[in-house]
Amino acid sequence: MTLGEKTGQLNQRMYGWDAYRRTPDGGFELTDALHAETERFAGLGALYGLLRADAWSGVGHTTGSGAEAGAELAHLVQRHVVEHSRLGIPALFVEEVPHGHMALDGTVLPVNLAVGAGWDPGLYERAAAHAAAELRARGGHVALVPALDIARDPRWGRTEECFGEDPYLAARLTEALVRGMQGEREPGGPFAPDKAPVVLKHFAGQGATVGGRNSAESELGLRELHEIHLPAAHAGVRAGAAAVMAAYNEADGMPCCGNRALLTGLLRHRWGFDGLVMADGLAVDRLARVTGDKVSAGALALDAGVDLSLWDEGFTHLEEAVERGLVSEQALDQAVARVLRLKFRLGLFEQPYGAGPFPDPVVGRELSTALARAAVTLLRNDHGVLPVSPGSRIALLGPHAGTVAHQLGDYTAPQRPGTGTSVLDALRRTGIDVRHAKGCALTGDDLTGIPEAIAGAAASDLAVLVLGGSSARTPGTEFDANGAARTVLSEMTCGEGVDLAGLRLGEAQYALLDAVVATGTPTVVVLIQGRPHVVPDTAAALLTAWYPGPWGGEAIADVLLGLAEPVGRLPVSLPRSAAQLPVHYNRKETEYGGYVDDSAEPLHSFGHGLSYTSFAYGPPRLSGHTVEADITNTGRRRGRSVAQLYLRRLRTPVWPRALELHGFRAVDLAPGETRTVAFPLRAGLRTAVPPGTVVEFRVAESARAALTAVPTQSFTAPEETPL
Amino acid sequence: MTLGEKTGQLNQRMYGWDAYRRTPDGGFELTDALHAETERFAGLGALYGLLRADAWSGVGHTTGSGAEAGAELAHLVQRHVVEHSRLGIPALFVEEVPHGHMALDGTVLPVNLAVGAGWDPGLYERAAAHAAAELRARGGHVALVPALDIARDPRWGRTEECFGEDPYLAARLTEALVRGMQGEREPGGPFAPDKAPVVLKHFAGQGATVGGRNSAESELGLRELHEIHLPAAHAGVRAGAAAVMAAYNEADGMPCCGNRALLTGLLRHRWGFDGLVMADGLAVDRLARVTGDKVSAGALALDAGVDLSLWDEGFTHLEEAVERGLVSEQALDQAVARVLRLKFRLGLFEQPYGAGPFPDPVVGRELSTALARAAVTLLRNDHGVLPVSPGSRIALLGPHAGTVAHQLGDYTAPQRPGTGTSVLDALRRTGIDVRHAKGCALTGDDLTGIPEAIAGAAASDLAVLVLGGSSARTPGTEFDANGAARTVLSEMTCGEGVDLAGLRLGEAQYALLDAVVATGTPTVVVLIQGRPHVVPDTAAALLTAWYPGPWGGEAIADVLLGLAEPVGRLPVSLPRSAAQLPVHYNRKETEYGGYVDDSAEPLHSFGHGLSYTSFAYGPPRLSGHTVEADITNTGRRRGRSVAQLYLRRLRTPVWPRALELHGFRAVDLAPGETRTVAFPLRAGLRTAVPPGTVVEFRVAESARAALTAVPTQSFTAPEETPL
Repeated sequence: MTLGEKTGQLNQRMYGWDAYRRTPDGGFELTDALHAETERFAGLGALYGLLRADAWSGVGHTTGSGAEAGAELAHLVQRHVVEHSRLGIPALFVEEVPHGHMALDGTVLPVNLAVGAGWDPGLYERAAAHAAAELRARGGHVALVPALDIARDPRWGRTEECFGEDPYLAARLTEALVRGMQGEREPGGPFAPDKAPVVLKHFAGQGATVGGRNSAESELGLRELHEIHLPAAHAGVRAGAAAVMAAYNEADGMPCCGNRALLTGLLRHRWGFDGLVMADGLAVDRLARVTGDKVSAGALALDAGVDLSLWDEGFTHLEEAVERGLVSEQALDQAVARVLRLKFRLGLFEQPYGAGPFPDPVVGRELSTALARAAVTLLRNDHGVLPVSPGSRIALLGPHAGTVAHQLGDYTAPQRPGTGTSVLDALRRTGIDVRHAKGCALTGDDLTGIPEAIAGAAASDLAVLVLGGSSARTPGTEFDANGAARTVLSEMTCGEGVDLAGLRLGEAQYALLDAVVATGTPTVVVLIQGRPHVVPDTAAALLTAWYPGPWGGEAIADVLLGLAEPVGRLPVSLPRSAAQLPVHYNRKETEYGGYVDDSAEPLHSFGHGLSYTSFAYGPPRLSGHTVEADITNTGRRRGRSVAQLYLRRLRTPVWPRALELHGFRAVDLAPGETRTVAFPLRAGLRTAVPPGTVVEFRVAESARAALTAVPTQSFTAPEETPL
Repeated sequence: MTLGEKTGQLNQRMYGWDAYRRTPDGGFELTDALHAETERFAGLGALYGLLRADAWSGVGHTTGSGAEAGAELAHLVQRHVVEHSRLGIPALFVEEVPHGHMALDGTVLPVNLAVGAGWDPGLYERAAAHAAAELRARGGHVALVPALDIARDPRWGRTEECFGEDPYLAARLTEALVRGMQGEREPGGPFAPDKAPVVLKHFAGQGATVGGRNSAESELGLRELHEIHLPAAHAGVRAGAAAVMAAYNEADGMPCCGNRALLTGLLRHRWGFDGLVMADGLAVDRLARVTGDKVSAGALALDAGVDLSLWDEGFTHLEEAVERGLVSEQALDQAVARVLRLKFRLGLFEQPYGAGPFPDPVVGRELSTALARAAVTLLRNDHGVLPVSPGSRIALLGPHAGTVAHQLGDYTAPQRPGTGTSVLDALRRTGIDVRHAKGCALTGDDLTGIPEAIAGAAASDLAVLVLGGSSARTPGTEFDANGAARTVLSEMTCGEGVDLAGLRLGEAQYALLDAVVATGTPTVVVLIQGRPHVVPDTAAALLTAWYPGPWGGEAIADVLLGLAEPVGRLPVSLPRSAAQLPVHYNRKETEYGGYVDDSAEPLHSFGHGLSYTSFAYGPPRLSGHTVEADITNTGRRRGRSVAQLYLRRLRTPVWPRALELHGFRAVDLAPGETRTVAFPLRAGLRTAVPPGTVVEFRVAESARAALTAVPTQSFTAPEETPL
């Protein structure tokens, strides 16, 4: 290969939607832009977002490719690439699959934060497998999936893309994601036609940017990075992830895309990762701020360990960079080998035009609904106001109650009308007497709808108030060059680029909440949101469903009515206010009495979630290398407890965290039934502790409950021990 | 020396006020507690706070030692110690001198944050010298002084003890402190009888605890620690500081008191520090959380590099720790040698009972007032409402207007009635027609006084509203074992242990502000405070004086009336709200568009402060190793501009900060006058940059102004260069 051809393999410069246009007959034709790009590099390394549809790309149902036509479009583009590559090298088609494939007719899943609330890696693995199959059936190859960002500051608009605040929970779900999408094959082996190599994003520490500011700096030290932000990545690498995406933010003073210590020293040398590193969009070009120009920025990124660029100019000059001695040809060759190897593993050299079998869309919907049901989390339930008593007259109120549009989260393709189920749809389908009023919009302070809502509440036995935020992008949204939202019109209050200092919902929603509670009618607040918001805990019951996806309304209604048990548990601490941030259960253990004007404790703790029954936890036993505890259903309904194993370090060479999640098990119990849950001791994050380290374990229903739970006898590590 | 005697030299277990009591005849007698302590260790290493007076110690004018009797009390205790020590070793008397000696009749200076606002190391050096002389004249030896904490989170109640958010400013003031208190002698040489060895506190990174929570954990990385939190300590060590205090918080996972990498690796080996390391109060015992017991905690701290403990039990068992092999006798001997060496340098073996000459109290008052005047910072001055026009009728309003009690800050001894000057006192002395109403209290929501304030404002030409917070401890305050405030009664809203999540003043103060502004009378807001608070910028003029000390009212009045120029400049960024924290001018340079609901920029920038005249800055010139700029007074009054040199890194191996303060010079200019200010290039923090680093410099009146100021030509480091 020539230097130019090699350079071409490392580039992914085009927006995929610029590669084609629809013809009047409903087919596709390729654009001059694609022709020029293919000619420039005598081929094409990778193409981003060929099937992407959303407000930013401008692709919708009239201009894009639905489920049927995807493979045809991919075929057309691939044939052009192969025929214009001297060596006949096919392109990688790289697609966003954050919670389902972000393409027209892709099955939308709940966002990661909702998946985190489900605490169910097995279910998520099946859903991820379905999403990968959809991607491959439409001609896509590689799935970009957020998994590694840890939600440490709810002001960040991308909190919804995180599995939560905890490294252990994120690590288990990341493993499930990799297994689900890639299948369990021999390491480095070929991918089945319904499996997709996954690019885990973002590597690393992006959840810790200062002030929750999107892609800003991180002051984080290496120790915090390793303890909190890297375990999910390490677990994903161990599970065989094909690729990771190097993040925008810096780690220890250097942006990840230019950070050789991170991308090569840690990832490849220490962890033994042999996959691909892709840069985040335009992240390589940003390095020009410290190198002086984009050519040297590209050289720095390649030398640091980036193999494949996204949209940057810097990587298009790698030929020049090698010739000028800014980076070695050996580094270039290594990166090219990694790109080609992924194409080999996908079988593209044997069958460049293949598309996998289409998975059953009914199964996709069922999986999405099951994930939504698992995510619904009951935080408060005074006097057993839930589940709804049979025959109750219900006022269903609030801006989220009657629409599916804002249940979906960021990185979602336009939906066909009629897709999904709102809470209103779901309740009405059950035949229940529901009086509905929106009350107010998600944003703004228009209070004119509130009297109707008050009237509805006053005339009902129960008010269900569905409040929250939205990451729904509209054509009015303006975007940065990398697709992050820039200015906010309409009702968007969350999502990439939409950081929120005060964590407040639209002001009218607070007025609506106060007014409905003041009627005296027992009130249930349901929050649909992409991050924790500050909402007064004044209603009789409080649930959060995060962004539960298209069929979230059904999941919420099932829980309200008691047709499903509330099994969600908080994957993040819910703060009382933005002023008390940061709030995490796994803070370092210091005695802190609180602020003068506020507590330092969260409103609701990590791991918290009520059931419709109650459970008693017996004292935990340390037996060999297993912790066991007996759990009894002490209520009158069948229910599920999510037993959480927490580790507490007693004697340790570094200052300990208050608690560290070390395992979890869901247990279904009939009334009066007792079962023993067992946690293997060494199944945690496998961090080695030095000899003489002393730890104890607690088993509880939440982190807060664990603070006062009875511990096991202590365990002393006799030698360097992975825990 | 026996192991027990050595152990005794490293202990400072007693509260000094428990060592004595006043006799009915006005003299002193020693307590059984002192007898027992001296007997236990056959001597006494050090005694903390013999002269301390405040609500926590319970020492006041009837029970403690005023200026006259201090030396007598010290003599009495010292004689007992020497006579009960087998080897006749005298004790160190260690005292709090945070802003003047915290003893009855000590001259109170403005708090460090006000000193930071003065940007005048020369003036501070003279004030520090005075404080040291007062300490020595009363028989005290060693001064505990905050200097190293960098104000990175205004929620922290100890923000008032910081010189500000910037490492360069803090480093220059720390040097001034060390020079002023210790004098400029040969390194390691004896101290003059009016000079005091200083314990710089706290080492290190205490300003970066998570959430501004007092002595909580820090997630800070080593890079941030070195760039922001260590330069002041390094400057203090280079200036010859006799001692540092190891902080409560952790650095890189280990509390500073048990952090050998920090106390020995960095401080002693890399920086060459040969002085004493004292632990913060009870910080050694806290290590038992990770070692298992207090004996091993003491051993860990000694091994890490702590020489002298404060109040801990852990250090009393060092004899046992050595015998059990937990720490070497060599480590014990090293620490003892450091304690004895400090006693030698103080001349205690020659003259254990000496006290220095009493400095002139008038000079002390003048220095305190001068520091206060330097601190008054004019942030806004619409339509030149200030200085006050001659003949104006003034309504002087607000809870701070007529009292000195809350001008003083934390760590202040009880004052004799009549000490100090409130704003009301000062204005009335000038013969100006002042109408005064308090309006409301500092805390609470009692609005009953507001109508009187409105009436006063309405009947006046100008309303001056003196608002703010208070760190004044009262007998009702409850304290932790280390003297940090625990629960807050009365009007205390700041100080050690008094962290404030929301940064809000008492709610009635906002109502008062709104009501007074609404009268239409031009309103000047003066803030007296120990941290930035969130105050709407709605008045015509805004000043902050921080806690300006007893004569702060005079300084404020002088500035209001134009008798003094406003020369203070902000040592911290003023945030718009707690929700947008952190806010620093020297953040890393990332393009961030702001939150959806708030700006990410401060309300008023670091370095900002208006004058009563105006200045024009010419383009800066890089000439050899000097940056020069011409500054012209373009207004009609004489005035002082504080020219600030900022460095901006262009080509660099780590991601750069937006700006870094690199020098400052105050320039007094007559109307129309132009002068050239010159900044030597290598006088910054002397951090070595690698060859090829490219930087530029800007000269401006604030960090915000520097963002758009014309730069010098760029400077390329030809080799490893200290900048």
